[in-house]
Amino acid sequence: MSERLAIFAEGLFAAHSGKTAHGVIRYGNREVVAVVDSTNAGRTAAEVEPFCVRDVPVVASVAEAVERGATSMLIGVAPTGGKLDPAWRPALLEAIDAGLDLEAGLHTELSADPELRAAAERRGTRLRDLRAAPPDLTVPAGPASRKAGVRVVHSVGSDTVIGKKVVTLELDRAARERGIASVYVPTGQTGVAIAGWGLAVDHVISDYVAGAAERLVNEGSERGDLLFVEGQGAIYHPAYSGVTLGLLHGSAPDVLVLVHKAGATALRNYPDLPLRPLPELVSAYERIAAPVRPARVAAIALNTSTLDDAAARAAVAEAESATGLVADDVVRFGADRVLDAVLAALST
Amino acid sequence: MSERLAIFAEGLFAAHSGKTAHGVIRYGNREVVAVVDSTNAGRTAAEVEPFCVRDVPVVASVAEAVERGATSMLIGVAPTGGKLDPAWRPALLEAIDAGLDLEAGLHTELSADPELRAAAERRGTRLRDLRAAPPDLTVPAGPASRKAGVRVVHSVGSDTVIGKKVVTLELDRAARERGIASVYVPTGQTGVAIAGWGLAVDHVISDYVAGAAERLVNEGSERGDLLFVEGQGAIYHPAYSGVTLGLLHGSAPDVLVLVHKAGATALRNYPDLPLRPLPELVSAYERIAAPVRPARVAAIALNTSTLDDAAARAAVAEAESATGLVADDVVRFGADRVLDAVLAALST
Repeated sequence: MSERLAIFAEGLFAAHSGKTAHGVIRYGNREVVAVVDSTNAGRTAAEVEPFCVRDVPVVASVAEAVERGATSMLIGVAPTGGKLDPAWRPALLEAIDAGLDLEAGLHTELSADPELRAAAERRGTRLRDLRAAPPDLTVPAGPASRKAGVRVVHSVGSDTVIGKKVVTLELDRAARERGIASVYVPTGQTGVAIAGWGLAVDHVISDYVAGAAERLVNEGSERGDLLFVEGQGAIYHPAYSGVTLGLLHGSAPDVLVLVHKAGATALRNYPDLPLRPLPELVSAYERIAAPVRPARVAAIALNTSTLDDAAARAAVAEAESATGLVADDVVRFGADRVLDAVLAALST
Repeated sequence: MSERLAIFAEGLFAAHSGKTAHGVIRYGNREVVAVVDSTNAGRTAAEVEPFCVRDVPVVASVAEAVERGATSMLIGVAPTGGKLDPAWRPALLEAIDAGLDLEAGLHTELSADPELRAAAERRGTRLRDLRAAPPDLTVPAGPASRKAGVRVVHSVGSDTVIGKKVVTLELDRAARERGIASVYVPTGQTGVAIAGWGLAVDHVISDYVAGAAERLVNEGSERGDLLFVEGQGAIYHPAYSGVTLGLLHGSAPDVLVLVHKAGATALRNYPDLPLRPLPELVSAYERIAAPVRPARVAAIALNTSTLDDAAARAAVAEAESATGLVADDVVRFGADRVLDAVLAALST
C-alpha cells in the first residue's frame, strides 16, 4: 500500500512554525491527503498559506484525516526548543490507535517516549524520527571517491533561516522541468520530511558531519547525476559555522550558490555581528572550499520577501553589480536565470 | 580521600596507542601510583617511554596497583576504533571488585556495558566516560558574553595528530612557571583524562560544538585568566574541519598558535590532498576567525620529532623566514620563545 500522508499542525498551520508543513505540501512528492488544524478547518492549505500552492484540505481532527485515507501522520510544526508538546499527545495516540505511522523531526525522539512507543508496538505501527542519525556513520573517504559523472551544487548562505532549503528545492525543480536527472539532497529535518530520505546533519556528532554529507551525496548519486545539496548555517555564524564547513567539505561541491536575505545587515541571532559584504562572502566560501575540492560561486540567490517588487529588482541589480555574478530571487522571479548560471559554471 | 590513579595499558604502554597514558603521566597533576602492563613490569614509565619523564612504576597486574594504593583506574590506551577490548574485561572487573572507580575515553561507554555497570553498582564504584557530553549543551551566547579580563590562546593546526595538545600543555606549563594564572583547556578525551575536567568536542552533536567550546572557556575562566584552548582537526581537513571551525568560533580566541609537523607535505589520512604553505594557513585561520572575533597567529609551533637537531633548527629557521613569525619546537627546544610571542601579541 502506498503512503498517504496527514500533516499535524494543530493551531499553528498559519504560523511561521508551520514551515515544515508548508514545505512538505509545496515541494514534497509525497501524497498529502489532509492537514489537521481545527483552527483552520474547512479551508485548503493554499488558502491558509499561499506558499503551499496545493489545495490540500485542512480538517479539524485526526479522525477526519483517517477518513480521507491517511496511512501516516507527520508532525508538521517545529515549536521553539523542538520538544514534544504535551497538548499533542491525545491526537498522536489517536493516530497510532487508528493504525497510522507517526513521523517527526523533533529533538525529543518519538521512540524515546514510553507511552507512544508502547502504543505503536501494541498496534504494530512505526515511529519515525527524522533527526535520528544512523549508527554506522563515519569519516568521509574524500572527494576523489565520488562516482564519475556526478555533479554537486551546494547552497551556502550569509545567515541561517534565510531560505537556503527553498532555493535548493526551486533549483532542483527547475532542473527537473528541463528534463535533467536532478536530485534535491536534504540535510535537515524539514528536508527529510519533504523528500522522504536524507539526514539532519546538525544532529550528527561533530566528528561525522563531513562523513554524513559524503554519504548523502553517494545516496543522491543513486537517484540522479545533478545533485542540489541543501546548505546549513553560515561560514561566519558563531554557533553553526562548524556544521556549515563540515557539510561543505563533506559534500565537496563543484559549484556553489550563495543565498542572502536582501537588506539584512547583521546576523539574525547575533545582532552585534555585522554581515560581511557579498563579494567577501563569495571569496570566503571559494577559498575555504578550494583545498578539498575547488568550487566557484555561480550565482547569488536573494530572498527579497520583505521588499516590494521595485525594491526587489533594485536589490537584485545591486547584488549583480557588487559581485559581477547573476543574482535573482528564485521564488519571486523564477529559478531560470540562477539555474542557467549554475549549468554554465558546471560546463566550464 | 584524594584520588590515586592507576593507568591500565596492558601490552601497549610502549606503543603509540598508549599516548593517553603518556600524556596523563607527563602533564597531569593527578597522582599516578602505577601503570598496569605485564609486558613492561619492573621498569618505570620514563624508562619505557622517556616522554613520560616521571618515574611511575609499571606493574604486572591490577592487584599490584591496588597494593600501591590506587583508588581509580584509567584505561590509558586508545585502540583503533575506540572499542572496549574483550581481553581487558577480567582486569576491569577485578579493579571494580577491588573498589576502584573506572575511567575511559572510548567510543563504547563503560556505563553502557551491562556487566561492568552491574559490577560497579554492586560494589558502589563509579564508571566515568570522558567522551560523554553533558545533556544541557546548547548554542553559544557569543564572544561578547565572555568575562572581562580573560584572554584566550587557541592552538590550531595544519593536520590532525601532529601535537596540538602537547603544544597547548607545554605553553600552559611554561606560563604557570612564570607565575601566570594560566589554564590548559582540554577539548578531547586525552586532555580530559590529563586535566580531570573538560569536554571531548568531537563527540558533541554538530549543532552544539561552538556552544561546548564557549562553555569550556567559561569553565576555564573560573580557574584562571589566561586560557590555552587545545585545538582539534584542521581547517582544510576533509573529515574534521567542522569540528575545527566550531571550536575556533566558539572559543573565540584572542591569539592563535599554528602547529605544524615539519616536513609534512600532505594530509596524513588523505595523501592526495597536499598541505597548503604555512603563510596561507596563517591567513586562512586569521580570515575565518575575524568576523566572529579577530585573532592573529602569534607563532608557529613546529613538531620536529622526525628530524635530527640540525635539520630541526633548519626547519625552524625556514618556518620563521616563510611566515615572518617566531617558530620553534616547544618540546625539543622549550616553550619560552613561542610563549614570549603569544604574550607580546596579547599585550598589543
